[in-house]
Amino acid sequence: MPRTYRHDKPRLRIDGQTRTYIAADDRGLAYGDGIFRTMAVDNGRIMARDFQFARLAHDCAALDIRGPSAAWLDDEFGQLIETGEAGVAKITVTRGSGGRGYTPPVPASPRVIVAFTPGRTAPPDPLALDIATTCLACQPLFAGVKHLNRLEQVWARREAASRARPDLAMTDTEGRLVATTMRNLVLMDTAGVWHTPSLARCGVAGATRARLMHAAEQAGRPVVEVDIQAASVGEFCAAIACNSVSGATAISRIARHRFEHSPAMARRAAAWLAATA
Amino acid sequence: MPRTYRHDKPRLRIDGQTRTYIAADDRGLAYGDGIFRTMAVDNGRIMARDFQFARLAHDCAALDIRGPSAAWLDDEFGQLIETGEAGVAKITVTRGSGGRGYTPPVPASPRVIVAFTPGRTAPPDPLALDIATTCLACQPLFAGVKHLNRLEQVWARREAASRARPDLAMTDTEGRLVATTMRNLVLMDTAGVWHTPSLARCGVAGATRARLMHAAEQAGRPVVEVDIQAASVGEFCAAIACNSVSGATAISRIARHRFEHSPAMARRAAAWLAATA
Repeated sequence: MPRTYRHDKPRLRIDGQTRTYIAADDRGLAYGDGIFRTMAVDNGRIMARDFQFARLAHDCAALDIRGPSAAWLDDEFGQLIETGEAGVAKITVTRGSGGRGYTPPVPASPRVIVAFTPGRTAPPDPLALDIATTCLACQPLFAGVKHLNRLEQVWARREAASRARPDLAMTDTEGRLVATTMRNLVLMDTAGVWHTPSLARCGVAGATRARLMHAAEQAGRPVVEVDIQAASVGEFCAAIACNSVSGATAISRIARHRFEHSPAMARRAAAWLAATA
Repeated sequence: MPRTYRHDKPRLRIDGQTRTYIAADDRGLAYGDGIFRTMAVDNGRIMARDFQFARLAHDCAALDIRGPSAAWLDDEFGQLIETGEAGVAKITVTRGSGGRGYTPPVPASPRVIVAFTPGRTAPPDPLALDIATTCLACQPLFAGVKHLNRLEQVWARREAASRARPDLAMTDTEGRLVATTMRNLVLMDTAGVWHTPSLARCGVAGATRARLMHAAEQAGRPVVEVDIQAASVGEFCAAIACNSVSGATAISRIARHRFEHSPAMARRAAAWLAATA
């Protein structure tokens, strides 16, 4: 007989134990000193596990935090997810508890929170994206890393809610297109070449973006990482947004520019994602 | 008979109860969606309580979080701090627990953590400041607010530790002097006018900085908020660094520029701070 859980509530394990509380002196809470990943679960399996765990390891290394092993994470999720379930998994790794002040403890004892929330909903498709007035700051030090300093995304999601939009495109403070409030962007030019905003200054390098870039590379059609001024989106004829929970979604427009060929691009992306799941 | 506590461990109260754990779905942990203040306690009293609570209220408002009342905070600290004690108090206010995703819950139930750590140590005096290679990103949206997104300060403190320096001066990514890793800066020019870096793009507007500006204003010698390129520190003849835990500290040099009159400036600052404690 399967265990029963209250639906929609996340099931949590913290440092290898079933818990819902963490020590109040955690540095993730105090300073956002940690990282996280969010992943789709289908049929009881984490989708694209290898890409996800590779990004997790990359981000832990970027903050010099000792991350959990893939085998340990597999065990943890094995305790949380029933055979055949679908939902959303999340891993948070913080530098652990610390004393007063910004200086990290040495050695640190990292804290790992794994969570699973049953159920998933499909995103709006296609996405029509206005551009958020909330901009992303340029900070090359942590660019690409999915760390816990996410006030900009919180603000952008508030803006989306107040404008009754499912998502918004975001630029950095210098007008370059970076991402949406929760998704990476890939745009196709009229020659069929795929481009994605460089994440050298800000933004989160998602695992789904990495999967698309990997598949495109394998197909001999590498995605070009490039600076794209928001005012230049008219140079592209198709665009998709992607994240790990909802995959690739066609974009019907960014600001006032409409993309004609996004559904075909989204189908190609979905095929590549299916091949790397 | 006074209660006894293990020394140096913070004493904590969370949402009005004696606790050391918080719910793992707290948005302060997930996204740094919250603010904090750190305060000196002398003789059982929070120093400059009114300035501190005013800055706390300002920062809560900046993130649209309903903050605790001053009377409630007084009660909470009354439970934590014994008559006559000295140490460091801290207040953290987060947006409380939330579900999956960046969008803040509406309505939110903010969480308040108050902490008191007995004991205080004097800072090095004077401070000799090299300039950190860790720069502050320009993000006007949250500039001045002491929010929980503090990875830059964590990185800068790591840098200070690795260079065996007690503190470092920090610039923004465009070369403007902003603060130290944990203190605000005030510099005096040869005409005796005090200047402090504008915090319109980044940095934390500390309560001690506010107290100095208030006292200077009252004395008819207002502090000028201004952009100061790090390369221009040679235009100043004195400098101090200040925070709420250690007050005003003379700066002997920033990078290679030495300040001759910093001790006198620090004495003036200390007198002004004593008058606003």
